[in-house]
Amino acid sequence: MDNNIENLIEGKNAILEALKANKSVKKLFVLKDTKDSKINDIINKAKEQNAIIIFQNKKELDLLSNCGKHQGVIAQIEEYSYVSVDDIINYALSKNEKPFIIILDEIIDPHNLGAIIRTANLCGAHGIILKNRNQVPITSIVINASAGAIYHTKIAKVINLSNTIDDLKKKGLWFVCSDISGENMYNIDMKGAIGLVVGNEGEGVSRLVREKCDYVIKIPMYGNIDSLNVSVSTGIIAYEIVRQNKFL
Amino acid sequence: MDNNIENLIEGKNAILEALKANKSVKKLFVLKDTKDSKINDIINKAKEQNAIIIFQNKKELDLLSNCGKHQGVIAQIEEYSYVSVDDIINYALSKNEKPFIIILDEIIDPHNLGAIIRTANLCGAHGIILKNRNQVPITSIVINASAGAIYHTKIAKVINLSNTIDDLKKKGLWFVCSDISGENMYNIDMKGAIGLVVGNEGEGVSRLVREKCDYVIKIPMYGNIDSLNVSVSTGIIAYEIVRQNKFL
Repeated sequence: MDNNIENLIEGKNAILEALKANKSVKKLFVLKDTKDSKINDIINKAKEQNAIIIFQNKKELDLLSNCGKHQGVIAQIEEYSYVSVDDIINYALSKNEKPFIIILDEIIDPHNLGAIIRTANLCGAHGIILKNRNQVPITSIVINASAGAIYHTKIAKVINLSNTIDDLKKKGLWFVCSDISGENMYNIDMKGAIGLVVGNEGEGVSRLVREKCDYVIKIPMYGNIDSLNVSVSTGIIAYEIVRQNKFL
Repeated sequence: MDNNIENLIEGKNAILEALKANKSVKKLFVLKDTKDSKINDIINKAKEQNAIIIFQNKKELDLLSNCGKHQGVIAQIEEYSYVSVDDIINYALSKNEKPFIIILDEIIDPHNLGAIIRTANLCGAHGIILKNRNQVPITSIVINASAGAIYHTKIAKVINLSNTIDDLKKKGLWFVCSDISGENMYNIDMKGAIGLVVGNEGEGVSRLVREKCDYVIKIPMYGNIDSLNVSVSTGIIAYEIVRQNKFL
């Protein structure tokens, strides 16, 4: 199933979210003889889209499953549609808002990527920019961890983050990234059109990208270990940006 | 291996963190004929503790593994030692600090629990209180997700959260919990001795516990879905408490 790995989603709620967001379901794999009313609801909605319904036994579904949480139903949906960086900027302008973009420098854990998409959607960011390479793809684990936010959040893929940052600076954005060497974020003014750059789980933000940023910031820490979980730290900084822009 | 599930940790870094924190290793399961220098380092440190070293092939290690990330080494360590609620209060007093406690109302995902322990350690909370029942136990996934923070963070287990909150109120703490019905947290004064109550992934904070809290707060949200990941929202609120107490 490797060739379809970006297009499978699993579990009742995840599939219902996809249907609610008008994602087209191509095939629906369902546990044979299921009596589950939510699954029957999903079958009816998928039939309205002319999806092919395939009944399987539990073992077959387990084999198809990527994250082991199928609950008796797996859907193959249309491919995830990335947008362009301009789409994200235009979306902000159409809302009369200053652009707020989250840029990910090689996030590798699908749970973290899903949680960050969820945060981006709820904190009012206009989109996410990912690197084309060395970045976890949009798998079913990402989709599930995003709790449906992936269908409401603009995501662009670029080849070179440094060049993208240069382009966006010309459009009036400025950039902060998080690093252990940075200044306490509570002392930094983060108002206005902003890009928040987040580094990967092991290495942080790469040197070339860090050097493009206007400010290197850090979350003050008082404990015994090195770093927060990257989806947690992204949430904390994103909401400090929200607080400064909306509640000061 | 179910009877030992709370005592196995996996992977080179997780085991090195445990050894650094002086956790006693009872048995060390190692990939036969490994040439990995970090694993050999682990073997030597475990031998100093009189641990039993057991060499296994990859298949045997895979079977023993709970989270599938053993990297050729799994350790059985001494049982996790919970503390009492009083230990957490006394720890705060010994540091001349106002108590700051994170209380979890039935967290069920081990990745979330691990990430919250990591956050608690780094934001300077004095400890975590868990419910005895309906709460994910301290498994190897929790330990790995905590990135070693579990060895530096006091965790107490109680039978009844409402009673514990009543007791702690008498000691001068007040309590906030997060719920969709709450007030914008940026408008709430969260200074002083405080307990932050976090609800479970599906249901949030239970009614009885919520009614014990002095304030019900919410993180302002601007998106299309219902809620943030619980470890992310815990991080955002915990750091708003840090900001108000240390940077206002």
